[in-house]
Amino acid sequence: MNSEIIAIGSELLTPHRMDTNSLFLTEQLNGIGVDVQYKSVVGDDRERLTETIGLAWKRSDLVVTIGGLGPTEDDLTRECAARVLGRPLHRDSTLAEGIEKRFRDRGMRMPEINLRQAMLIEGATALPNPRGTAPGQWIEDGRRVLILLPGPPRELQPMFVKSCLPRLRELVPTAAICSRVLRLTGLTESATEEIVAPIYTRTTNPVTTILAAPGEIQLHLKSFGKDAAEAQARLDELFPQLEAALGEYVFSTDGASLEEVVARGLTTQQAAVAVAESCTGGLLAQRLTGVSGSSAYFLGGIVCYSNDWKIEWLGVAPELVQAHGAVSREVVQALAEGVRRRSSATYGVGITGIAGPTGGTTDKPVGLVYVALASPPGTSVEEKRYLGERELIRWQATQTALDLLRRVLCKSEEQSVAHAKPRLL
Amino acid sequence: MNSEIIAIGSELLTPHRMDTNSLFLTEQLNGIGVDVQYKSVVGDDRERLTETIGLAWKRSDLVVTIGGLGPTEDDLTRECAARVLGRPLHRDSTLAEGIEKRFRDRGMRMPEINLRQAMLIEGATALPNPRGTAPGQWIEDGRRVLILLPGPPRELQPMFVKSCLPRLRELVPTAAICSRVLRLTGLTESATEEIVAPIYTRTTNPVTTILAAPGEIQLHLKSFGKDAAEAQARLDELFPQLEAALGEYVFSTDGASLEEVVARGLTTQQAAVAVAESCTGGLLAQRLTGVSGSSAYFLGGIVCYSNDWKIEWLGVAPELVQAHGAVSREVVQALAEGVRRRSSATYGVGITGIAGPTGGTTDKPVGLVYVALASPPGTSVEEKRYLGERELIRWQATQTALDLLRRVLCKSEEQSVAHAKPRLL
Repeated sequence: MNSEIIAIGSELLTPHRMDTNSLFLTEQLNGIGVDVQYKSVVGDDRERLTETIGLAWKRSDLVVTIGGLGPTEDDLTRECAARVLGRPLHRDSTLAEGIEKRFRDRGMRMPEINLRQAMLIEGATALPNPRGTAPGQWIEDGRRVLILLPGPPRELQPMFVKSCLPRLRELVPTAAICSRVLRLTGLTESATEEIVAPIYTRTTNPVTTILAAPGEIQLHLKSFGKDAAEAQARLDELFPQLEAALGEYVFSTDGASLEEVVARGLTTQQAAVAVAESCTGGLLAQRLTGVSGSSAYFLGGIVCYSNDWKIEWLGVAPELVQAHGAVSREVVQALAEGVRRRSSATYGVGITGIAGPTGGTTDKPVGLVYVALASPPGTSVEEKRYLGERELIRWQATQTALDLLRRVLCKSEEQSVAHAKPRLL
Repeated sequence: MNSEIIAIGSELLTPHRMDTNSLFLTEQLNGIGVDVQYKSVVGDDRERLTETIGLAWKRSDLVVTIGGLGPTEDDLTRECAARVLGRPLHRDSTLAEGIEKRFRDRGMRMPEINLRQAMLIEGATALPNPRGTAPGQWIEDGRRVLILLPGPPRELQPMFVKSCLPRLRELVPTAAICSRVLRLTGLTESATEEIVAPIYTRTTNPVTTILAAPGEIQLHLKSFGKDAAEAQARLDELFPQLEAALGEYVFSTDGASLEEVVARGLTTQQAAVAVAESCTGGLLAQRLTGVSGSSAYFLGGIVCYSNDWKIEWLGVAPELVQAHGAVSREVVQALAEGVRRRSSATYGVGITGIAGPTGGTTDKPVGLVYVALASPPGTSVEEKRYLGERELIRWQATQTALDLLRRVLCKSEEQSVAHAKPRLL
């Protein structure tokens, strides 16, 4: 089965916005053995949209459209798709009630125009959208399928996974592509390549792709087989070799983010963390609390942006700030230890640095960041010099802090296993 | 003149890579008054590529292809474009020598296959590529233009700017496009549409597009004119009408983000802010400190995730938490006032709520968030019920907090102007 994806919206033809939904959809489609042969972007224009859907419908087994399902006048996907299929649109009363209820639940009146979103193409199945007012639509015609999805990723993604994938799997019986991702931090892209190239270039199945993300490197492996078992076996042969070669730099082999890995470690060990951040301005706390259930291990954080706050709220000695400056090894250690002591946390993290673009000096340039981790055995401090813009420097600093925490949690995990072993024997 | 962009390469149809060159090209083309009507991505496949270029050539005045100009067998752009135009390819001896020299200069022998890059479509002008071996090609046919560009951005960008823009400017002598964006918060997309549709639908120039972003609505206006002055005049006529209709909901008319607008207000009034966040976990502090120079007005923040922290660090009375719960009007007010008092800030912000997905009850469902702003005249509290996932709820809560701050800053700005006026008269 071959497919194509059409992203709809005039904003996607400006220099400011681009379609990223097709990356998610391609991954999902590849996962069930469906190839994507074309992607296109078209604006909110009746003629051009009809022509684009029409051409796709002529040449592809599966056509997925993204966007243009909103309530406004320039949301034309329903109408143009109906025209291509030669089928009428009619108002679905269940959909209309659902949309009305959504507004009522929030104590709001539904604007009349939202009823446009209750228009269904004849013969279409409505795809529920628990996260928005625009339902999707699924239309089968002979062996071909047309799917209309809403544009916002948070609406599109669960709708595709819950309502489309199971239906598609029935039409494409034997999935033959498997994929897996290995995530690491602390190595550059080229250093990673040097380590893994001798291993992954021995085979073209799996295909290995190295991608650099901020403060992180990802290895994407994709294997092909005549059935899922064969594809999986190929993956199972190569993956552990890459993992072993990269060793301690690997933080996740199941897709988990660095903060999720840290969250697991803290939960397992029933440990708690508190943070004191200066240049990262709350980003570390935000990442740690981005994981649901974080109240179990995250006590709180202080964004100590001014020196006064460092001194008053965290007990940093004023002489320390005076002697070494706010961005120093000494102050970051005092921050980590101060927040740990004052909150009775197992672990205390401190971050101070110069995120730029202003505030740098010759001695202390933009990108200089100190990160400290105070833990039961003592405090360790890292000095880093990051490259890049303000946001990237802040992100990398939190990446270093989370990785410090991950490594300490791993070590104490190993020790508790080592301690436990003799008793188990 | 209308245009379309075709990005070529099978890697652009995987989940890991996407065409970003078209954003650059769109900006450049818009700048000289050329509209982009379609974008497409097609793989390295002879049939599909020929079909795609053929269709574009039929419907657009200007077609720009990206990629597929390399020396290998799957670089098919030259061949397919020649087929669409019905013109032969011939080897250009000057190009061949240039490519050979490039290798010689680096002390390397030119692989035979690189001579493919010296093949020129009959009647084409070669576009020099100082940063790579693949020259571009410029083909005019009547009033239409086909441009073949290499894929790497560092090769494509200077080639387009130096060799294509001047030629295109001659073909599109005076037309111009101007654009402007209006950003607002506090209204839904459909409520915005109801207010502005009667105004913007009166004209098709400027074109108005409504975009919904998390916790925010944007109106993008794009006007066309025979020159920049005419395009600007059209924009200047419509924009203030939309701005007036949307009134207090508008936070920015120059592209600035909500935190940047708040930053300006605080800086102008030499005021300082401190925040106490529970469910947003540091996101508000992070947004406020995301603006460079924020140390001038941001004192610090407390991420008071646990009740202990709310009580110990912010002086919230334990009885208040006991009687009303941590997620309540009373506690959020105490948070805002506590952080303001303890840090001597002009403004104190408090946020508490249930970001989910767990932790909700019938009385206090996921999405219930209280936001408070303590300021010199007193404290105001907002109760909100947001929809969406954890990250979206957190984002919307910070949006509400920033908007409260923006509105108070606006009001005190107006008052100081009102006070100032009599003296000026």
